[in-house]
Amino acid sequence: MPSKPTDITDDVPEVVVLRLPQYVRALGELFRQKVVVVSSQQLGIQLQMTPAQIRKDLSYFGRFGKQGRGYPVGYLLGELRQVLGLERKWNSCLVGVGRLGRAIINYPGFTPEGFNVVAAFDTAPSEIGETIGSLVVQPIVELERTIKEQDIRIGIVAVPATKAQEVIDQLVRCGVKAILNYAPTGPQVPEGVRVRNVDPILALQSMTYYLKSD
Amino acid sequence: MPSKPTDITDDVPEVVVLRLPQYVRALGELFRQKVVVVSSQQLGIQLQMTPAQIRKDLSYFGRFGKQGRGYPVGYLLGELRQVLGLERKWNSCLVGVGRLGRAIINYPGFTPEGFNVVAAFDTAPSEIGETIGSLVVQPIVELERTIKEQDIRIGIVAVPATKAQEVIDQLVRCGVKAILNYAPTGPQVPEGVRVRNVDPILALQSMTYYLKSD
Repeated sequence: MPSKPTDITDDVPEVVVLRLPQYVRALGELFRQKVVVVSSQQLGIQLQMTPAQIRKDLSYFGRFGKQGRGYPVGYLLGELRQVLGLERKWNSCLVGVGRLGRAIINYPGFTPEGFNVVAAFDTAPSEIGETIGSLVVQPIVELERTIKEQDIRIGIVAVPATKAQEVIDQLVRCGVKAILNYAPTGPQVPEGVRVRNVDPILALQSMTYYLKSD
Repeated sequence: MPSKPTDITDDVPEVVVLRLPQYVRALGELFRQKVVVVSSQQLGIQLQMTPAQIRKDLSYFGRFGKQGRGYPVGYLLGELRQVLGLERKWNSCLVGVGRLGRAIINYPGFTPEGFNVVAAFDTAPSEIGETIGSLVVQPIVELERTIKEQDIRIGIVAVPATKAQEVIDQLVRCGVKAILNYAPTGPQVPEGVRVRNVDPILALQSMTYYLKSD
């Protein structure tokens, strides 16, 4: 029997936490393929990481594998989903219903993963009251009340770069501690609040470094 | 006078390269605000990094600042843009013209940064020949010819997860060495090819870790 995970502390480096969803995705794929046990070597090939790195990352959360036997796929998957808080649903709100915001509301990938966009906001009077998907766009003054009422824990920001910091400040004041930011800007947040930037321009610019010498 | 950058080698860690676009964005913002000199402390506050980390990162590319005097904003910005290959235009093609692909074609953020989406492809016969923005959707059999003719160096992938690896393999066979992947999957690529995944689900899952104990 694999041992239960030991106490998880905040000593886990953020870079490890950032990799956990990739483990979950790879293990989920193996689970669907009915693979029962996977070695750190096999996982390493799939994730393009060294087996040593994988063993080290996973060791933060417990002793999952038997020396030389590999990891039990279903068990490890369940434990990591627990560690990441993926065994429950999370409500989020979207701010900014331009072209990008609309694509986000209509994106079919969030709900199956337990992320629900349950409210949408905009500052432009012309957008307020419009129905997008199943949501009626609300004025930003409703932010605080709606966040409390609907237990919204995640803010998705799809406003122009110039407005992003202001919107994120408002979300943080309403108690939101996780921001998914689509605006091309690096916002400031107080300690204890996490931001992830979905930013294709930064991604492209970090690849042209390698292209330019070709 | 700041000294010229020394030879740049492939010894620069990828994690540093990944941060360079953030420096460029922060310096560009300072430049627009007519700031002439910036200290590693000031940059550190803006980028939420330690001054020591910033000095170390930048030291890979030359000696930009005078001890205790800070960095010359315009000069450093120009040099880093050069290092990243941002002083030229880059042609890209999009594969997959579903809802997400259409949003990408219409996204106004790429062109001002020097990234042009010059061709669009899909496998579905119903999409072929349709005009989206200024592009006519081409069948995937035209991929190789178009990539060569239009000097396309970057592939943007917006197909379903199940098709992403196959599409990326095709792009790589056509000589593309930089992939911006919007499909929720971690594709495999040969050495010398870079992939950046734009993946809101992984981003969300790496934040719920911190939310779940609240």
